[in-house]
Amino acid sequence: MTTYSAVELIRSKRDGHTLEPDAIRWLIDAYTSGRVADEQMSAMAMAVFFRGMTDAELSVWTQAMIDTGERMTLPGLARPTVDKHSTGGVGDKITLPLAPLVAACGAAVPQLSGRGLGHTGGTLDKLESIPGWRAELGGDEMLAQLRDVGAVVCAAGTGLAPADRKLYALRDVTGTVESIPLIASSIMSKKIAEGAQGLVLDVKVGSGAFMTNEPAARELGERMVALGRDAGVRTVALLTDMDAPLGLTIGNALEVREAVEVLAGGGPGDVVELTLALAREMLALAGLDADPAEVLASGRAMDVWRRMIAAQGGDPDAPLPVARHSEVVAAEASGVVQRMDAMALGVASWRLGAGRTRKEDAVQAGAGIELLVRPGDRVVAGQGLLVCHTDTPEAFTAAREALAGGIEIGEQSAPPRPLIIDRIV
Amino acid sequence: MTTYSAVELIRSKRDGHTLEPDAIRWLIDAYTSGRVADEQMSAMAMAVFFRGMTDAELSVWTQAMIDTGERMTLPGLARPTVDKHSTGGVGDKITLPLAPLVAACGAAVPQLSGRGLGHTGGTLDKLESIPGWRAELGGDEMLAQLRDVGAVVCAAGTGLAPADRKLYALRDVTGTVESIPLIASSIMSKKIAEGAQGLVLDVKVGSGAFMTNEPAARELGERMVALGRDAGVRTVALLTDMDAPLGLTIGNALEVREAVEVLAGGGPGDVVELTLALAREMLALAGLDADPAEVLASGRAMDVWRRMIAAQGGDPDAPLPVARHSEVVAAEASGVVQRMDAMALGVASWRLGAGRTRKEDAVQAGAGIELLVRPGDRVVAGQGLLVCHTDTPEAFTAAREALAGGIEIGEQSAPPRPLIIDRIV
Repeated sequence: MTTYSAVELIRSKRDGHTLEPDAIRWLIDAYTSGRVADEQMSAMAMAVFFRGMTDAELSVWTQAMIDTGERMTLPGLARPTVDKHSTGGVGDKITLPLAPLVAACGAAVPQLSGRGLGHTGGTLDKLESIPGWRAELGGDEMLAQLRDVGAVVCAAGTGLAPADRKLYALRDVTGTVESIPLIASSIMSKKIAEGAQGLVLDVKVGSGAFMTNEPAARELGERMVALGRDAGVRTVALLTDMDAPLGLTIGNALEVREAVEVLAGGGPGDVVELTLALAREMLALAGLDADPAEVLASGRAMDVWRRMIAAQGGDPDAPLPVARHSEVVAAEASGVVQRMDAMALGVASWRLGAGRTRKEDAVQAGAGIELLVRPGDRVVAGQGLLVCHTDTPEAFTAAREALAGGIEIGEQSAPPRPLIIDRIV
Repeated sequence: MTTYSAVELIRSKRDGHTLEPDAIRWLIDAYTSGRVADEQMSAMAMAVFFRGMTDAELSVWTQAMIDTGERMTLPGLARPTVDKHSTGGVGDKITLPLAPLVAACGAAVPQLSGRGLGHTGGTLDKLESIPGWRAELGGDEMLAQLRDVGAVVCAAGTGLAPADRKLYALRDVTGTVESIPLIASSIMSKKIAEGAQGLVLDVKVGSGAFMTNEPAARELGERMVALGRDAGVRTVALLTDMDAPLGLTIGNALEVREAVEVLAGGGPGDVVELTLALAREMLALAGLDADPAEVLASGRAMDVWRRMIAAQGGDPDAPLPVARHSEVVAAEASGVVQRMDAMALGVASWRLGAGRTRKEDAVQAGAGIELLVRPGDRVVAGQGLLVCHTDTPEAFTAAREALAGGIEIGEQSAPPRPLIIDRIV
C-alpha cells in the first residue's frame, strides 16, 4: 500500500479537494493501527465536518472502516436475514417488539445493539432490566439462537469495525460528532459488518433526535441508504418523528413493560404503528409476504419474545423492577397539551437514573417517566401529566428542572406531525 | 478561574459563535498545561481555520498565549527599543544589515530570531556561518550587549509564550498552519513578549512567501498591527514583494556576504531599498530622526555590525565558508527573463543543503544559490543564470528538478511589481 502524508491529506480535505480511494484506505488503516495520531484524525474529522465527503469518498471510507475488522457471515440459516437500526430517540423501544415479530413472520433478525449514553436509552440497558437476561453472547451462541428462535438482541462484538470504535471515541471529545457523512459511515460500517442481507433504518427527526431538522435527517437517511446499496445490502430508511417521545414510557423496565403490552396486542398506538411499519419494510426486504398485524394479533410474536428472552437467560415471567420512589408532575394550567418535548423528557429520565453520563456508570432498571397524557389531550390544572420514577429521590429536583418549559399547555389543538414522515429508498 | 468544557468550546467555535474572553484564557492555559488534549486543540485550530476569530477574540487569545510565559522587560536602556519581524521569504537577509544600521542611528534593536525550516532560511542559521558566532545568549548577556552595542540577534528563549511553541508544533502536523488569526497570534505573542516598544512587520506576499496572495497578506498585516496596538506596542507593517528572491544570494554564508556588501555601501538595489525603508519605519517608531541612508554611507552601521558579531564570539574578518562544489545553470533560450520564482529557488537552495527538513538536521554553511541575472534582464542561450553551491554534489539533480519551470525566458519586458507594495498602520 502506498504511504501518504497525513498532513497533506488533512490539508487537501480542508481545502475542498476530493481524497483518492487509496488515500482514504491508507488513512483509516494507519489511524486504526496508530500510525496517524489522534490529533491528526480529529483535525481531519473537523475538516470533514466543514467540507463533507462525496458519495464515492464516503463509500470507500465506510468500506475501509469495515475492513479494519471482521465482516460476519451468518452461515447455515434457512431464513433470510434482516436487520433494523434506529438513529436513537426518547422512548424508542421498538426493537423489543419488532425483532420477535419479524422472526415470527419467518425472517432471521440479528440485532447487535448498544448501551445508552446521554438522553437516549440503549436497547441492551432496557433488556437487562429483565431478571437473568444477559447481553453478551459468543458468535456460536448467537448463530444458534438465530437458527432456533429467529431473533437475537445482543451486544456487538469488538471485532466489528474497530476503526469506528476508535474514531467515535475521538469525535466524542473533539466536537466532531455532528457530521452527516461521519455519522453515516459510523452506523453503516457496523451494520454492514454484521452481515445481514437487508437493513431497515429508522431515521429520527425532532427535538429528541440526533437530527433536529428534517433536511439533515433526510440527508443522513439518503447517504446511509446509498452506503448500504454500495455494500450489497438492501437498505430502506423511514424518516420518523421524534418531537415527542414514542409511547407512554421512558426508562428501561418501563419500556420493556410497554413492549410486552404491544406483543400482547395492546400498547400505545404510535408504538404499534411504527413497529408494524418497520416490520413491513423488513419483510419486504426479506422477500416474505406475511402480514405482521395478523402475526402480532395471533400471539406468535409474543411466543418468539418469550423464547428469545429465555434463550439469553432471562425469565419472561419474572416481575420487572420498580423504582422505590415516584412523584407526579401536575398541570399548572387548564388547556390542551401543545407539546411534550422529547429532549426535555429524555434528559429528565436520564437524570432520574435511567441513563448514564459515563460509559462505566450503572443505570437504574426502574427509573424513568410514565406519561399520563399525550400532546393534543385536554387537561385541567392540577391534573397529573406524568410520573417520575427513581431509586434516588434527590434526583427529582434535577428532573423537574429538565422538564421546565418542555411541556406546554395552550388553547390551540394543532394537528401533530405524522409519525412516519417519509420513506427513503 | 471558571472551568469550561473543551468539547463545548470546540462546538461553539465550529458553529460560528464567538468565544468569551474567560473561555479563551481557560483554553490556552489548559492546553499549555496539558488539561486540554492535543486532539481537542487540533480540532479547535481547524474550526478556527474555517470560522476565523473576531478582533476581540484574537486579542484575548494572543494575550493568553503571552501570559503562559514571561514578558521580557529591557531595563536600564537609555535608547528606545524597536524590533522587526519578517513573515519569511527567500533570500531575506534584511535583519543582518538592518539591526546594526538602526542601532547605529540610536535605537536599541533586540532581534530574537529562529532557525529555518523548509524553503525559507533562518537568521540564526545565516549568522552561524560566521566562524565562532553563537546564537544562544543568557538574558543578562543579551541586555548587556543591547546596552553596549545597541543590537543583538540571538535565539529566543523558551520562556516566551510557551503556548505558542506547543500550539505551533501541533498545527504543523495537523494541517492547521494556514489560518490568518493563528499565524498572527503566533507571531505577535512572541514579539510582544520580547518587550520592544516598537515593532515593524515585513509581511511578504508572493510565490516564495507564506502568503501567496495580496488580500491574505494584507489581512495578516492588519490583524498583526491591531494586536500590537492592543498590547501597547507601536506597530507598523510593510507589505513587500516575494515573487522573486531578495537580492542575488540564497543560502547562509552567501547571504551574510551580501549583507556585508550592503553594510559596506554596496549590495543589490532591492536589499538596500528594503533595508532603508524598514529602518525609516523603525526609527520613526523610536522617535529618532536620523537618516539611515547617511548612516549607512558613513560606515557607522558596519562598525556596529563588527561589534555585534564579535560580542557573540564571531570573527567579522574570518573568511566565510564556501561550498566544495558548484554548478552553473544556463539559459536554454535567448530573451528577457520573465520570472525567477522565489519558491522554486528557495526549494532548490534548501535541497542543495542550505535548509533543513527536520528541526534536528544540520545546514551547510556554504550551500545555496547565487543569481547571475534578475527578472527583466536580457540573456542569450547558454548564458549562466545562476550558480548552485553545495558540499554534496548528488544534490544538484534535486536542485535542478526544483528549478524546472521556475525560470521563464520570453519576449516581453513587463514592469515588475514594486518591492514595497503598501504600508499598514
